Parts: sequence; C-alpha cells; structure tokens
Amino acid sequence: AATRSKSYNITLLPGDGIGPEVISVAKNALQLVASLEGIEFKFQEMPMGGAALDLTGVPLPEETLSAAKDSDAVLLGAIGGYKWDNNEKHLKPETGLLQLRAGLKVFANLRPATVLPQLVDASTLKKEVAEGVDLMVVRELTGGIYFGKPRGFSTNENGEEIGFNTEVYATYEIDRIARVAFETARKRHGKLCSVDKANVLEASMLWRKRVTEIASEYPDVELSHMYVDNAAMQLVRNPKQFDTIVTNNIFGDILSDEASMITGSIGMLASASLGASGPGLFEPIHGSAPDIAGQDKANPLATVLSAAMLLKYGLGEEKAAQRIEAAVLDTLDRGYRTGDIYSAGLKLVGCKKMGEEVLKSIDGKV
Amino acid sequence: AATRSKSYNITLLPGDGIGPEVISVAKNALQLVASLEGIEFKFQEMPMGGAALDLTGVPLPEETLSAAKDSDAVLLGAIGGYKWDNNEKHLKPETGLLQLRAGLKVFANLRPATVLPQLVDASTLKKEVAEGVDLMVVRELTGGIYFGKPRGFSTNENGEEIGFNTEVYATYEIDRIARVAFETARKRHGKLCSVDKANVLEASMLWRKRVTEIASEYPDVELSHMYVDNAAMQLVRNPKQFDTIVTNNIFGDILSDEASMITGSIGMLASASLGASGPGLFEPIHGSAPDIAGQDKANPLATVLSAAMLLKYGLGEEKAAQRIEAAVLDTLDRGYRTGDIYSAGLKLVGCKKMGEEVLKSIDGKV
Ligand SMILES: CC(C)[C@H](C(=O)O)[C@@H](O)C(=O)O
Ligand SMILES: CC(C)[C@H](C(=O)O)[C@@H](O)C(=O)O
Repeated sequence: AATRSKSYNITLLPGDGIGPEVISVAKNALQLVASLEGIEFKFQEMPMGGAALDLTGVPLPEETLSAAKDSDAVLLGAIGGYKWDNNEKHLKPETGLLQLRAGLKVFANLRPATVLPQLVDASTLKKEVAEGVDLMVVRELTGGIYFGKPRGFSTNENGEEIGFNTEVYATYEIDRIARVAFETARKRHGKLCSVDKANVLEASMLWRKRVTEIASEYPDVELSHMYVDNAAMQLVRNPKQFDTIVTNNIFGDILSDEASMITGSIGMLASASLGASGPGLFEPIHGSAPDIAGQDKANPLATVLSAAMLLKYGLGEEKAAQRIEAAVLDTLDRGYRTGDIYSAGLKLVGCKKMGEEVLKSIDGKV
Repeated sequence: AATRSKSYNITLLPGDGIGPEVISVAKNALQLVASLEGIEFKFQEMPMGGAALDLTGVPLPEETLSAAKDSDAVLLGAIGGYKWDNNEKHLKPETGLLQLRAGLKVFANLRPATVLPQLVDASTLKKEVAEGVDLMVVRELTGGIYFGKPRGFSTNENGEEIGFNTEVYATYEIDRIARVAFETARKRHGKLCSVDKANVLEASMLWRKRVTEIASEYPDVELSHMYVDNAAMQLVRNPKQFDTIVTNNIFGDILSDEASMITGSIGMLASASLGASGPGLFEPIHGSAPDIAGQDKANPLATVLSAAMLLKYGLGEEKAAQRIEAAVLDTLDRGYRTGDIYSAGLKLVGCKKMGEEVLKSIDGKV
C-alpha cells in the first residue's frame, strides 16, 4: 500500500432530506481516491440544519461550528424541509447555513455552471445555445444585504409597520472578492464580467469603482461590467458569452441559480466557498429535495463533484480531484443516469448504484 | 366622420437613441385608431433623459414632469446612451426615469411576457418549453431599495469607505401592489405567485405576511410563494407554470428582464406603470439601442403595443386597444419582420415600413 503521507480532517454535514444519501456516496469516493493517492482522511459527521434543530434546538450547534473550524475542509449535503419552513427566523435551517458561512468566514463562493456534452439535451435551451456553456459565478458570500445592519421591523413616521434590510459593502470586502474573481478568471479564459446595479445603487457604484481599481493588478484579464437585469437576460440569450462572473451576495444568489438551470442538470453542480485562510465549505448547489428523500432516487454526482472541489480548492490535491472528475464523466459515458438526468436508451439507476459505478470508474475496474 | 366625443391629452417622451423613431410610429397608430373610434388625442412632446440633459442640463426638467402630470397618459420611448454613462448619479438619464416614476406615483409596473405563435422560434428556449408562455410580472416600482433611505457613501468603524442602500417596505406599499396583482391575476388565469427572499430578508418576511393577508380578499385567486433564486431558475426550466408574478422593485427588475428574454422578442414587449390615480406611464421594455439609432432599423412594435396598453389600462379604451393589438398580429401574419425578429423566408423591413404596415392593418386596407 502507498505510504499515507498526508492526513486531513474532514467535517461531514449530511443535513436534511437527500443530504445523508449523497454525502454517503461522496464519502466513499473520497475514501477510495485517498487509498489510491496515498492520502488519509479522518471524517467527523456533525448535525446541521433541520437535523440539528430536531436534535439540539438550534440549526448550527456550537459543537458543529467548532468541529468545522478545526477541520481541513467541510463537506455539506443539503439543508431544509417543509417541517421547519414556518419556524421563526433564528430557528430556520437556512439561518444555520448563513451562520456557518459567517463562522468560517468563507466570503468567496465559486459556482461553476458547465454543460457537459453528455447532458446537453437536459437543458431547456436550444442545443446550439446550451452546448459549450462553461462559466463560473464568483459570488460574495458573507456581506451585502444578507448580513447588513440595520435590519428588522419597525414603524415609520405614519405608524405603519416596515420591514428593512441594508445592502452595504466596504472597500475591503469588494477588493478581496474581486481578487478571487480575477485569479479565477486568469486560470480560466481570462474574461471577467462584474455584475452590479450601479445605475441605481450606491453600494453598486462603490463595487464598480473598486473592481475597476483592482483590475489594474490583473492586466492579463479582460474586465467588463454589466447591469444585473441585463445579465439575467444575457444568461438566457447567449450564456456562452460569459467566462467568469463576479457579483454581490444577493445578485449572485439569483444569477448563479439561473445559470445552473441553464445547464439543465442541477443535480450535477458543485460549489466551493472559500475564505482567506481556514477550511473551505463545499456543497452541491441543489436543495434537500424532501419529496424524494430516503427513496434512493437522488443524484449524488453534484456532491461527488463538490468533493472534487474540496480536493482541488480546499486541500490542493489536484490529482485526486481529477481522478474524481474523470470518474464522473466516465460513469456518464457508460450510460448511467439518475432520474433527473435520464433520457431514453440510457441506464436508469438510483443514488447508491450511481455511487457504486463512480467507485468502479475511480478504481479503473470497468 | 365619427363624433369626437372623447378627447385625451397625451404626453410623448421620445427620449434617446431609437426612442424618437419608435414613438413616431406609435403616435401615428394612436392617431389612426382615434379617427376610427371617434376619439381625439392632443399630443405634447417633451424632452426627457439624455435629450433633456443636453437641452436643459437635467434628465427630467420640471416642465416635462408637470406636463406629464397634467396629461391623461404618458408614452415614453427609451432613455440613455454611452454619452451620459459616466455622468454623476443626479445627471444620469436613468435618474430622470426614476424621478418620473416617483413624480407620477406609478407604483405598479405591469410587464407582460408573451410568446406569440408567430415568433416562437425567436426564443433561445426549446420550442416545447417556449410555446404558449403568457405571463405577467407585476413589479413594485416606487419603493424598496431603489428609493429606500438611508443611502449613500460613508466610512465604517475601521475608516474604510462603504456604499449602502436600504431595502424597505411599509405595509401600505405591499398591500396596494398586492391588490393590483390579485386584480390582474383575477382577469388572467387566476394564479398569482409572489416572489421574495423571506428565508433571509426581513423586508421579504413582511412582504410575504402582507401578501398572504391580502389574499383573503381574493378567494378566487390561487396564491403561491417562491424564493427569488428559485423563480430565476423556474423561469428557465418551465416558464409556462407562471400566470401572474408579483414582486418587489429590484427582484422585479431582474425577473421581468429574464422573462422578456425568454420570449426571445424584446422588441415586442410593452409595459404599463400605474398609480392609484393620475396618468399612467407606458413604455417598451427595450432600451435606447444607441448602436442602431437613426438607422431606421428599430422594431417599433413594443412601443405600438405600449400604446395599446395606454389605451386599455390608461384610458379604458378597450376597443381601440384591441384594434392595435390585432393589427400587430396581422402585420406579423403578413410576414413583416424587423431585423431583431427576422427569420428566413419572411419580409425584412425597417422601422418606418413596419409602422406603415401596422397602419394598413389598423385600417383594414390589406
Ligand atoms: C438557503 C439560502 C439561505 C441560500 C442563500 O440564499 O444563500 C441558498 O439559496 C444558496 O444559494 O446557497
Ligand atoms: C434604467 C433603469 C433605472 C430601469 C430600472 O432599473 O428600473 C430599467 O432597468 C427598467 O427596468 O425600467
């Protein structure tokens, strides 16, 4: 056996719904790739989201956050479900996720949206529009209107109830996400599109000013700016025009979901959330899908690909990451499909079986 | 000749770029339909946007706003252009538009997105996904983060520059836009989807609470709620699931543009902005297209259809509105297309010629 030179602590947060099923598949993939690459993983599973609410009364227990902070990387399944939908804000699974992002200080959310040749038909866009789409949304994740203060409820001068939030960005927040985005674009095709609403919002004007300033550090990257409403259109009109997109927290939430749906295969899309130092947070972009939870129907590939992002961006284990990515493509090439990406003539399988086939591909046993 | 029983004052705001060309076509259509329906229009043309900036130094001169307020309805072409892009905020054409909306108190923006059978191929979505799409976005237009205070630039406790805006809604603002949306849904297919981000934002929590409350006044309308990120996905996945959508100012800006692009024919889409009383503001949703301005290439149909919305929603002249709508369909049926909606085998025409063909269709001279 290979010498196990490197050992990493990984916190697994299975969460709710299909979370546990997909995390279990990804864990197996990590374990197998570790044995082949001479890496060692120590996994610790912790409760989070609705599961944590049921167990401990809060969506992100202190123990879960400290385990996550003390580890080398965090892999999350999915959180949320009907059961907790009407909870008060501080008792929502989503609040636990926001606390985890803030607690880990992962300000940069990388969300690739790629149309794989094997799955081009899954897109609702015409083939000629969808094929070849390969873009990356870099979303600011720990600032803006998600965390801005003041926020809350109050009454206005006419005694009417109001609800309010603050969209706010400081220069250092913009500068650091801009640098991540320029670095990302540099490693991709050298094009960065910054999305804002600088024709209306002051927060966006500062955003545009700082991004333009930071651009001088990256003369090899071509920077453009686009208003968010236009970006929402252009993603539908011609998504291939984009390489890397950088935007704020709320616009990134909206546009990255739109971009993922353009690929037609949300069950395939991974994400990485990174800070300046400390462990990164890796998760599929799909939700907890409570309607199919526990039925062995979930597509585990988004979580498997999130594990690949964990290896690449979280641990710098490029070779191990490539093994997993190649195995996913190989499994698709061999015709295996879960229900969400199935089309006639291919092999319809469940979550577990898909996981087994990925393992075979990793192992080269096919 | 018919007795001219009704007389209306219409303010025309041609604006910038292709604005004057498309307004001129729409004016001719209004004039012809007036003579056929026994209506009289008195038109007053006023400067607005970049044109006003060049002429008077401000994007919305006082005289333009008072003329608009004193009229029965306002028809706007388009505003903006490269020339004024780097102006300071209070000297941007866009600022003039926001001032006009606020000045006219038009809080309800109705933006239909319909895929016409004649133009289904123009969509980048697959035919089976695009055909039959017929939705209406009801966007709150005079509140939220567009107008919320405090806003501006400042320094934070670390001496860093910040830019900030306030997303804020009061109950009366939500209630009145909700009522417009329920009324709109009632006249359509009885389904209303309210879009918010109530899992994160307090302003959205109040939004959802009030919309749910107002729903009790409309037991015949089926209300659902959707998060904005999911709505951005669902518009791509299956736009036919939507009938009427109601949402706040910024989400409405993004989603209505996305919805329009789904039809593939932005040059065809009209909008109406209505207040509690006073004149409505009607405008095509496309921009000023400075790259093709003055070349007789613009598609005037969005503005012609905005004139139809003016007749219907602004003046209650349903029959005149229907004449214009029918004429637009008839002109398309006869094969006339501007460049933006052209496909092989049809008749490629410019802005003026398209306008002449619409007049023929209105007149029945075809
Ligand atoms: C669950 C929710 C709070 C979250 C967000 O809005 O960030 C989700 O939509 C996402 O994009 O990860
Ligand atoms: C020009 C701009 C200020 C405007 C808006 O954001 O409302 C436009 O995008 C629109 O949708 O009418």
